Amino acid sequence: MTSEPIRLGVAGLGRAFMLMLPTFRNDPRVRLVAAAAPREESRRAFEAEFGGRGHATVEGLAADPEVEAIYIATPHQMHADHVTAAAQGGKHILVDKPLAVTLEDADRMVEAADKAGVHLIVGPSHSFDAPVALAHELIKSGEFGSVRMVQALNYTDFLYRPRRPEELRTEEGGGVLFSQGVHQIDIVRLLCGGLARQVTAMTGAWDPTRPTEGAYSALMNFENGAFATLTYSGYAHFDSDTWMGNVAELGGEKPPEDYGKARRALVGLDAEAETKLKTTRTYGSGAEPPAARHHEHFGPIIVLCDRADLRLTPDGVEIFGDTERRFVEAPLGAVPRKTVIDALTAAVREDVPPPQTGRWGRASLEVCHAILRSADNGAAVDLSRQCGTTEKEEHA
Amino acid sequence: MTSEPIRLGVAGLGRAFMLMLPTFRNDPRVRLVAAAAPREESRRAFEAEFGGRGHATVEGLAADPEVEAIYIATPHQMHADHVTAAAQGGKHILVDKPLAVTLEDADRMVEAADKAGVHLIVGPSHSFDAPVALAHELIKSGEFGSVRMVQALNYTDFLYRPRRPEELRTEEGGGVLFSQGVHQIDIVRLLCGGLARQVTAMTGAWDPTRPTEGAYSALMNFENGAFATLTYSGYAHFDSDTWMGNVAELGGEKPPEDYGKARRALVGLDAEAETKLKTTRTYGSGAEPPAARHHEHFGPIIVLCDRADLRLTPDGVEIFGDTERRFVEAPLGAVPRKTVIDALTAAVREDVPPPQTGRWGRASLEVCHAILRSADNGAAVDLSRQCGTTEKEEHA
Repeated sequence: MTSEPIRLGVAGLGRAFMLMLPTFRNDPRVRLVAAAAPREESRRAFEAEFGGRGHATVEGLAADPEVEAIYIATPHQMHADHVTAAAQGGKHILVDKPLAVTLEDADRMVEAADKAGVHLIVGPSHSFDAPVALAHELIKSGEFGSVRMVQALNYTDFLYRPRRPEELRTEEGGGVLFSQGVHQIDIVRLLCGGLARQVTAMTGAWDPTRPTEGAYSALMNFENGAFATLTYSGYAHFDSDTWMGNVAELGGEKPPEDYGKARRALVGLDAEAETKLKTTRTYGSGAEPPAARHHEHFGPIIVLCDRADLRLTPDGVEIFGDTERRFVEAPLGAVPRKTVIDALTAAVREDVPPPQTGRWGRASLEVCHAILRSADNGAAVDLSRQCGTTEKEEHA
Repeated sequence: MTSEPIRLGVAGLGRAFMLMLPTFRNDPRVRLVAAAAPREESRRAFEAEFGGRGHATVEGLAADPEVEAIYIATPHQMHADHVTAAAQGGKHILVDKPLAVTLEDADRMVEAADKAGVHLIVGPSHSFDAPVALAHELIKSGEFGSVRMVQALNYTDFLYRPRRPEELRTEEGGGVLFSQGVHQIDIVRLLCGGLARQVTAMTGAWDPTRPTEGAYSALMNFENGAFATLTYSGYAHFDSDTWMGNVAELGGEKPPEDYGKARRALVGLDAEAETKLKTTRTYGSGAEPPAARHHEHFGPIIVLCDRADLRLTPDGVEIFGDTERRFVEAPLGAVPRKTVIDALTAAVREDVPPPQTGRWGRASLEVCHAILRSADNGAAVDLSRQCGTTEKEEHA
């Protein structure tokens, strides 16, 4: 055990990496020492800012002896190969959500990490948001009795943000399930103990110009008796951030005049122009992550317990008890996404993994697929690969 | 056809009647000419206010030649006998929701009305609320394309309002399904065309001192392809009126200092004292219905259509279109619940029934039972007795 900063390599210098920048720049517990990216422009920007080594391939990064752990922020469908390469290189891994697109890939990744004896953490994801972590702690305290029912809903403009073509093809991990649903599933599983039992769901792919799932509703239950509804729409009409104090997903303020902005930005663009627009949001493009005065969030979430309902807000948790209500703040520290680095540090330095392990990510991915399957065949889908919030609670 | 006021008799002078008072007092299209109630105090108050005739039994009221139509506002489990008596007396019927507790009773009532050739309308219910009617009109206009997904949720203090003992026994129509769920089901069915196909649901009865369903979540779909989630909690913690501008169910303002009031009022009361407390809220007790500056509502409801989401508010409908949003007001007329009298008048004077017929009420009741059954056996329940928003669209 050492208190030296973790020497981190980064695979993928796109939008996900950019959103981690304020964390990597400000948390002294990590030091960026290398990166892999296909675009030379991104590698140059990385080398200029961090002084680390740029690699053209993830395999090269995985072989870099300077690197202790790798943050994998490449497109979903590449996660499996990149995680496997990193594990074979003996590196601990933080992989962006979703763990993978197929369950077969997820199996391969879990196995590779096990075999190499490295930690595999799925994150960042909104289940790391400080108000979610706070709600989880409040629930574990037992003060409010059992969790009975959870409602999670989120109405965004997801489907109309600039996309690469494959992000609009479900079989390649496109659509709202793999990118967005997995956040909601992660959060709800965390609050309900993790061991989901069955899910019934319906999905919608209603815009023929963006022909992938843009919305879903799911009803699921858990081994501890809790049940939950999860609803998502990425169709850019009603915006549920209005129920989160007009705080945007990333914690910034949302100006009312932005209404319709996502759709307007796409008007007249072909697929190529849209892909190009997307790159203006990545690292090295000159864009900077938005400043935030609140925590990130994933839409309204209400947790009904025996003796109180908990409402997650971008600033903490509102507790609605039998006779009074109170607010517990989740203080906004100097470093955003501190909880992700907490998890990485505890795993790499103290061998204590967070709930969001590879098995955890696989269980959330199982729910994504179950939602698609239930919607397809009109029946409930039994889940069999769930795991609890600690490593010991794996599903029989 | 005549423009004479409808000569209305009232069966039951409890809380439901009191909430109709501002309508009956102010709408010139109805005139109260008789009432039936077991409590003499209520009959005296009625005779003093309206000059009509008080009857000790509904059978007496049904035989009153002065009476043209009867508003039945007796406890749920008595509806079947009272509707049957009214039909046999040749009176048109407005019966409070739910139509009945059992589907057998519902059958008997529909049959009795058919046989007598009288109109049977189930109302008032929140499906008559002006913003609901406005949303229904907006959908029918076709401007926004098809309805695809509806979210309806409502968190109230229902379970802790003063109750008679049977109101806490499910088999006698107690719990949130028959009293409250039926509102939500009515509204969602109206917005989705009425013909529900299948429902999967979970329920909770989590307070052993009030041992009936206090909450549920249901996922249902419709023959036209739309689907919906319906969620309700009556456990008096989080209050979803916060998402309705702090406007209470009946359209009045909700002072923040009232938090926890329902539970506090019950502290130390036994069943008898609680029943007595309930009577302080009925007609003749001196209590008056609350003044309202908004329409009534039944919690947040979002309707996702192809080209806009519609959000119901206590004042109208907010339309979230592709590039702009706008608000369509549902004007607050001089007479509350005018839509109920519109329906009664159209049926009795013009032979044009509203969507909320006896068959409609039976279809909503079928969903209540399907929710209980699905929660009980953990499987989806197929619906077979649905009807559309016009009489012609009955389920095959």
